[in-house]
Amino acid sequence: MLRVLQIGLGPLGRMIVEYLHATGIGAVVSAVDSDPSIRGKHLGAIVPNAGPTPPKVVGSLAEVAGEAADVAVVTTSSSLQSCAPTFKDLLERGLPIVSTCEELLFPWLRHRELATELDALARRTGGRLVGTGVNPGFLMDTLPLVATAVCRDVRGVLVERIQDASTRRIPFQRKIGVGLTPDEFASKVAEGTLRHVGLGESLHFVAHYLGLRIDAWSESIEPIVTGIPLVSSLGQVLPGRAAGVRQVASGMREGREVIRMEFAAAIGQPNPHDRVRIDADPPIDLLLRGGVHGDKATTHITVNAIPAIMDAPGGLHTMATIRPVHAVPILRRDGTPEGSRPAMQGAIRG
Amino acid sequence: MLRVLQIGLGPLGRMIVEYLHATGIGAVVSAVDSDPSIRGKHLGAIVPNAGPTPPKVVGSLAEVAGEAADVAVVTTSSSLQSCAPTFKDLLERGLPIVSTCEELLFPWLRHRELATELDALARRTGGRLVGTGVNPGFLMDTLPLVATAVCRDVRGVLVERIQDASTRRIPFQRKIGVGLTPDEFASKVAEGTLRHVGLGESLHFVAHYLGLRIDAWSESIEPIVTGIPLVSSLGQVLPGRAAGVRQVASGMREGREVIRMEFAAAIGQPNPHDRVRIDADPPIDLLLRGGVHGDKATTHITVNAIPAIMDAPGGLHTMATIRPVHAVPILRRDGTPEGSRPAMQGAIRG
Repeated sequence: MLRVLQIGLGPLGRMIVEYLHATGIGAVVSAVDSDPSIRGKHLGAIVPNAGPTPPKVVGSLAEVAGEAADVAVVTTSSSLQSCAPTFKDLLERGLPIVSTCEELLFPWLRHRELATELDALARRTGGRLVGTGVNPGFLMDTLPLVATAVCRDVRGVLVERIQDASTRRIPFQRKIGVGLTPDEFASKVAEGTLRHVGLGESLHFVAHYLGLRIDAWSESIEPIVTGIPLVSSLGQVLPGRAAGVRQVASGMREGREVIRMEFAAAIGQPNPHDRVRIDADPPIDLLLRGGVHGDKATTHITVNAIPAIMDAPGGLHTMATIRPVHAVPILRRDGTPEGSRPAMQGAIRG
Repeated sequence: MLRVLQIGLGPLGRMIVEYLHATGIGAVVSAVDSDPSIRGKHLGAIVPNAGPTPPKVVGSLAEVAGEAADVAVVTTSSSLQSCAPTFKDLLERGLPIVSTCEELLFPWLRHRELATELDALARRTGGRLVGTGVNPGFLMDTLPLVATAVCRDVRGVLVERIQDASTRRIPFQRKIGVGLTPDEFASKVAEGTLRHVGLGESLHFVAHYLGLRIDAWSESIEPIVTGIPLVSSLGQVLPGRAAGVRQVASGMREGREVIRMEFAAAIGQPNPHDRVRIDADPPIDLLLRGGVHGDKATTHITVNAIPAIMDAPGGLHTMATIRPVHAVPILRRDGTPEGSRPAMQGAIRG
């Protein structure tokens, strides 16, 4: 049983704690969140299935400096700058870290110096750090990359993630601007509070590992305006208001678009799906019918990445440098996976 | 530039040599094949693009005992027993090896003792060994496994590979029984010469890494008999004769099918595709429209796996224990990938 240090107990952090305990691979021994309304509470009072001996929530990492842990999970912010002090503290302790910090998926894009610093620190202490999630982290980067395993001469990559936001959490619906007028939408974009973070990171992750040279890139964002009244968790959405958001990132070489990533999420969006097309030999046309539910998927991939980051060497990693992440086996009470015979376990890794 | 030892110069080995040189990641320095008709010939006389200084083909590995190499590629046989002496020789030299030997995808299924022996040898010498290919190696094992990254509670896995064999090589069409009568087909199955090797390996690979316990498994094989005349590279296929083969592997637990893998390849097979369905939370329904061309895909994934096996620690590996394989960047003449800026290369692995 791994001793897990959980930092961040928002909706995502709480779902992660619950799934972690369901898998049987670890137990939260320390929980940190800056929200004063939960500080001092037992984790079990916040998360239904919080393990055998849920700790009290503390307000800062400094308060768990003396606690032993095997791995840390960080679900606090999309911003690498905001997460950096936490990452540095944990790496100083030599810990492996999985984080949903969107910019950590490919931190060299916006924070090259900080990435170099984190990598050097991790190599020195044996700590390991990887950013993951459903998106960025899987659907628009890791999956397209893995799909090229059978390809040569990759000339272009097109990824679409088209979501019906009707079934998503209220914070997600708010984040994508549901119900806003076009002017309100534009103001929120201008102040930086309405944006899916990670499209540029996914684009540069794919470009980097495939060696697709890009000499320019751009990202656009616009509301998806409804023509008919819609029902959302935030109330009725009137015609002329935003049902959600469409963002497109384009990577260009010599005026030609070599990578295109389109993200659309809106109430009542028809034909939700994820699609990856690779212009290569052979070409790849991969479709995930119905798409993949985002909140659940991010919860699961974060926990599922723990065994892979545990096995990685010290350093700043990406989803392309740790072994492939997959659903962790549900463990039996004796600690062995449901499906594997002990003799096989001993013989192979993972 | 990696110095590559190529063992096996059948159609697949030759395509691999060509793709390897096109990528610029390595050059064949030694080539081995037991076929007397090509022994002593220059590799350049057999493969159009065989690199700057193509070696002479030798008949056995013993003849290249003194040659320095960085990595070996083995494309000789589906049988692990047949390949074992070659693997042992190469592992004794401490070499990383990528092989298309189908049974090597998950060798614990049929050769547990030999697998343990190869693993121990590799750990001792620092050698590394992995089995790959399009199938087994990717479509029916690695891809389904990776697709579960966002899942919990995996209850079942269904994989279909439905191929139109019309565009495949003559040896492939012969292998799947094109043109045989049902009796001839049955005889070839009985003598073991007509069978796609690897379905059981794929099934147990998926079961093992997902912890899907199986208490029984079976594999069936039958001809796909045409009702109309068909045209194949082997000549016309008359009604009542085999257009190809259908194989199904089932993994059962307590009488319930938890994994099903269906492989069908036939001349004129309608709606070719690859499909992966995961019964989990969230469910996954992944479709590769049109399917993936097998000969090309195996060629590419074998070479694309070289950087990943180079980076792995000593031991017997699988596609689940080396970092994710993806299309290798085409290198510029100066040795740097087309798309990556040198500063990024220095900072991250892979």
